[in-house]
Amino acid sequence: MTETSVLAPAQPFTKDERDAVYKAIHTRRDVRDQFLPTPIPEDVQNRLLEAAHHAPSVGFMQPWNFIIIRTQQMRDKIWKAFSSANEEAAQMFEGDQQSKYRSLKLEGIRKAPVNLCITCDRSRGGKVILGRTHNTNMDVYSTVCAIQNLWLAARAEGIGMGWVSIFNDDDLKSLLDIPPNIEIVGYLCLGYVDELYQEPELQAKGWRKRLPLEDLIFQEKWKPEVPT
Amino acid sequence: MTETSVLAPAQPFTKDERDAVYKAIHTRRDVRDQFLPTPIPEDVQNRLLEAAHHAPSVGFMQPWNFIIIRTQQMRDKIWKAFSSANEEAAQMFEGDQQSKYRSLKLEGIRKAPVNLCITCDRSRGGKVILGRTHNTNMDVYSTVCAIQNLWLAARAEGIGMGWVSIFNDDDLKSLLDIPPNIEIVGYLCLGYVDELYQEPELQAKGWRKRLPLEDLIFQEKWKPEVPT
Repeated sequence: MTETSVLAPAQPFTKDERDAVYKAIHTRRDVRDQFLPTPIPEDVQNRLLEAAHHAPSVGFMQPWNFIIIRTQQMRDKIWKAFSSANEEAAQMFEGDQQSKYRSLKLEGIRKAPVNLCITCDRSRGGKVILGRTHNTNMDVYSTVCAIQNLWLAARAEGIGMGWVSIFNDDDLKSLLDIPPNIEIVGYLCLGYVDELYQEPELQAKGWRKRLPLEDLIFQEKWKPEVPT
Repeated sequence: MTETSVLAPAQPFTKDERDAVYKAIHTRRDVRDQFLPTPIPEDVQNRLLEAAHHAPSVGFMQPWNFIIIRTQQMRDKIWKAFSSANEEAAQMFEGDQQSKYRSLKLEGIRKAPVNLCITCDRSRGGKVILGRTHNTNMDVYSTVCAIQNLWLAARAEGIGMGWVSIFNDDDLKSLLDIPPNIEIVGYLCLGYVDELYQEPELQAKGWRKRLPLEDLIFQEKWKPEVPT
């Protein structure tokens, strides 16, 4: 196969198509409580997993695996693991912030009909991976890209997603029989939603505000000193 | 502000809108050579950065910064840093694989009119961050989500993007005056494209094939043993 045979015109996006991509990006939320019990059909679930599988991956390593958890029994066990870690987490905050923390719902493990654990197999594709020679975390970053693809695809399907990060990994690994050499990257809750927050939930609830974008942008170098 | 005042109907996507999101996901490429010299207008660049800034972030931490690099002088210096790291990388491969590696173009630093270094400030928002109490890398993962948002938005704008990961971080930090406590997450090349690979470039060039998705999916637990 010659190189030219696989290059093709770049298929420009219409304004409506472009707007749809931005709609997914700007209205995506980290959902913890708005899940409906409606089951996710197999074909929809497959489109979401295909979206994740089409993420960029370093050296085309595709280091991810997807563990789909649907049974109430397993979701109950995982919720207990969350709950124990979350009590540890709450105690790290002080005074008013701890009360505020305890008032937030931070997961939808039992309410969302589908849970999904996404892992990274750090040994997939051999020892030396193109593009991972100088940053060994690139495989984990690829897996995060898969999660973000899935998140946006879910939004477009009317499905909300929440990322639960408050776990002791050993608890999850033990419950899900995940081998020691496999790294858990994300634990996700998925379900149809008919309502979403209009702004990030943590902002809506007064936890923290969006930063002004212009303060985060530098030109040519990190925060150049103003000449005096 | 009450909780109900910020929940709103979830704005369903039409089939066309959904298809547009999937088009971005499935036709996105890691671009190394198809960049056109056409400048990226300020308003388009701002839409891309807004897309990144609307990524999910742990505890709404928004740990990212964006260093925009446009001057030829800086891009030349950064290319030299890449080039030196890439020679180290090539030597990690053996025999035929090394020749094949050397034949691949792995960056567009000098060809793409805009380069972008995205960093993670691990101390932003204080010491204890909601959701990062048990996985301290969640802030870096948030930053990767910002990169993937930007990548898909770029695709929708007709802009190709490539992620260059073959650097010694100290070289980049020194060239860009990045403080020690700030972590470089991604170095990106951006420019308009009129052609794209129809499949991932590393597959088109015979480096590695796409894995069958069905082999990567497990139910309830990691690869359950078949009962004997």
